[in-house]
Amino acid sequence: MSHEGKPITCKAAVAFAPKQPLEVVDVVVAPPQAGEVRIKIMFTALCHTDAYTLDGFDSEGKFPCVLGHEAAGVVESVGSGVTSCKPGDRVIPCYQAYCADISENPCEHCLHPKSNLCQAVRAWTGRGVMKTDEKPRFTLARDGSEIFHFMGTSTFSEYTVVHEVAVAKVNNDAAPLDKVCLLGCGVSTGWGAVHNTAGVEAGSTVAVFGLGAVGLACIEAAVEAGARQIIGVDTNDEKEAIARQFGATDFVNPTKFPGKDTQSVIVEMTNGGVDYSFECVGNVNVMRSALECCRKGWGTSVIVGVAAAGTEISTRPFQLVTGRTWKGTAFGGYKSRVAVPKLVEKVMSGGDKANLDKYITHRMKFEQINEAFDLLHAGKCLRCVLSMD
Amino acid sequence: MSHEGKPITCKAAVAFAPKQPLEVVDVVVAPPQAGEVRIKIMFTALCHTDAYTLDGFDSEGKFPCVLGHEAAGVVESVGSGVTSCKPGDRVIPCYQAYCADISENPCEHCLHPKSNLCQAVRAWTGRGVMKTDEKPRFTLARDGSEIFHFMGTSTFSEYTVVHEVAVAKVNNDAAPLDKVCLLGCGVSTGWGAVHNTAGVEAGSTVAVFGLGAVGLACIEAAVEAGARQIIGVDTNDEKEAIARQFGATDFVNPTKFPGKDTQSVIVEMTNGGVDYSFECVGNVNVMRSALECCRKGWGTSVIVGVAAAGTEISTRPFQLVTGRTWKGTAFGGYKSRVAVPKLVEKVMSGGDKANLDKYITHRMKFEQINEAFDLLHAGKCLRCVLSMD
Repeated sequence: MSHEGKPITCKAAVAFAPKQPLEVVDVVVAPPQAGEVRIKIMFTALCHTDAYTLDGFDSEGKFPCVLGHEAAGVVESVGSGVTSCKPGDRVIPCYQAYCADISENPCEHCLHPKSNLCQAVRAWTGRGVMKTDEKPRFTLARDGSEIFHFMGTSTFSEYTVVHEVAVAKVNNDAAPLDKVCLLGCGVSTGWGAVHNTAGVEAGSTVAVFGLGAVGLACIEAAVEAGARQIIGVDTNDEKEAIARQFGATDFVNPTKFPGKDTQSVIVEMTNGGVDYSFECVGNVNVMRSALECCRKGWGTSVIVGVAAAGTEISTRPFQLVTGRTWKGTAFGGYKSRVAVPKLVEKVMSGGDKANLDKYITHRMKFEQINEAFDLLHAGKCLRCVLSMD
Repeated sequence: MSHEGKPITCKAAVAFAPKQPLEVVDVVVAPPQAGEVRIKIMFTALCHTDAYTLDGFDSEGKFPCVLGHEAAGVVESVGSGVTSCKPGDRVIPCYQAYCADISENPCEHCLHPKSNLCQAVRAWTGRGVMKTDEKPRFTLARDGSEIFHFMGTSTFSEYTVVHEVAVAKVNNDAAPLDKVCLLGCGVSTGWGAVHNTAGVEAGSTVAVFGLGAVGLACIEAAVEAGARQIIGVDTNDEKEAIARQFGATDFVNPTKFPGKDTQSVIVEMTNGGVDYSFECVGNVNVMRSALECCRKGWGTSVIVGVAAAGTEISTRPFQLVTGRTWKGTAFGGYKSRVAVPKLVEKVMSGGDKANLDKYITHRMKFEQINEAFDLLHAGKCLRCVLSMD
């Protein structure tokens, strides 16, 4: 039965307030308006940014809302004017939009070779609403009250509505949606931080701080780039084995060096510092360590993690004057709608090397979403993929 | 009469203690040892780094010493093993050495395409001594006590001794030493910050904070690179005219916007921020403004100024995660001994455009050096060139 043009009542995991468990309840998902796409989510993973917002650290977080931004699904219906996808298309919703090839007036970020921060719908996704009418498409079935979107994706729902500019197509019919859903955030972010933002070259030395899925993706990409030394850094010793499995050549647990800062440890073990470092924790003190463990003259540090609102990074300017570069990345610098389909192809043609299975430590039913959050908080899981059926 | 192999007694302006005027006294300059070059200084300019050290802000500053690092002269004699210059050669001493083409074991910085921070003699120049015997070549004529070197150059003296790796030759006989001496620091630093460190492209928008000689050199280079908007920023309104003369299209005096930070002013006037910014003041708060006035997505800020010891830069990491890059530069990223001769050629072949006269606001006799410092402190002068005869 087609629901085209009609509201759909389905299950969604609603975050009613910060620091509360999600509640799986019935929501009504309105039909897509002009420039919008309604997607039947098939698989969604959990990412630390969801947990971060649920924990109340995101000043932009607006409750009640439907979280979730790393997923894959099938287009159920499209609003007027949508030309780039159609019902039945397999897609990955992208929290970072890209408007250039479907907008008459592409934004300056889409046109600029160095930016992937399309602004076409940013103002609205930041407020949890859709651009057309400044309203959310979710309402609570029991009382009709509004529920806000999150990151323009809201994938913790059986159906969601996103802007067309945020839909990447999965062109390869053989691509397993329960795996390529990871390309919607964490894995792409780590890969892109290394390849796009830093531009790691063969023979480089690399340090990766924080060995969750994003950090491990950085390690994987550094191996691909030909780095000769890759130092994994994590306060959890259990991360050493998996880091080495991904290709780390060394492991540093900062808690094992009392009275000594991590940057000194790494500078010593590399005889001067690393060529590139990546901060995948979201802690401003770790960001400083990551910068200062870089090599004088040419070391580059990339901030990948999201720090708590209000916190600041700092260092002596001498660190930069003596040749270090401090950068950051969002979605790994990839222009989402054009890059994600290519990343899917890379995974499909890459054999074991590009296999995404190694990031998936847990699989659960959608209804178990709060258990999945518990695992994430406990550092027990890289990616937990939830199945919607 | 040749002094080769013998000490030379001559005048030098000695800094006996921080915050005291220099004293022009007789010093004895020992003959150059292995790998060293004794230079008869013909012209020396003053730079803010000299003033900064004299004011006691440089934690590395060692007194008594002979300051000065922006000069030109003629080789008087060379120590054993010196092959790259000979008596009579016209040269520019370089505070940043470059060892690659005259060392059997070039340092990793000289070999690395991204670094100009040759370390061959850094440990010794930082301590005010020569590498061969860890001693200075200056002694006070009246009592034989040691006087330390500064930045490996010590050009406030009729004669000085420097390491061979710090000597750039002036190959063009027509090049006027009283002008190309400026290529020893400030002008090269500004030019290189724009061309090497930032890589400003045609059509870019640029903000330059601090309109002394270095900031004006940034403006000049930005014009050369084809920047379409160049905003000069200075708290001194008198800088507006000269900034526009160098090619600035706009001028901002931060003190004219009470209650508003400079980054907001610039973000508004550029509809989102500039592509590149340069901090040529040496103030950590200005460094923050310079970063945060850069455009989301791709803006790059370069720290050129030297901040007081112990001060730190800070910002929200979000500034970097949303695409800004924070860098720094020393000697504009130029590999000194190979780049300075080319810069001399550029000046000689560049006609009016590359004319260095516009940086020289004052000329004085060497003996008037304290007057020159007063002018620099008062912001009344771009470059004051002192003549030694």
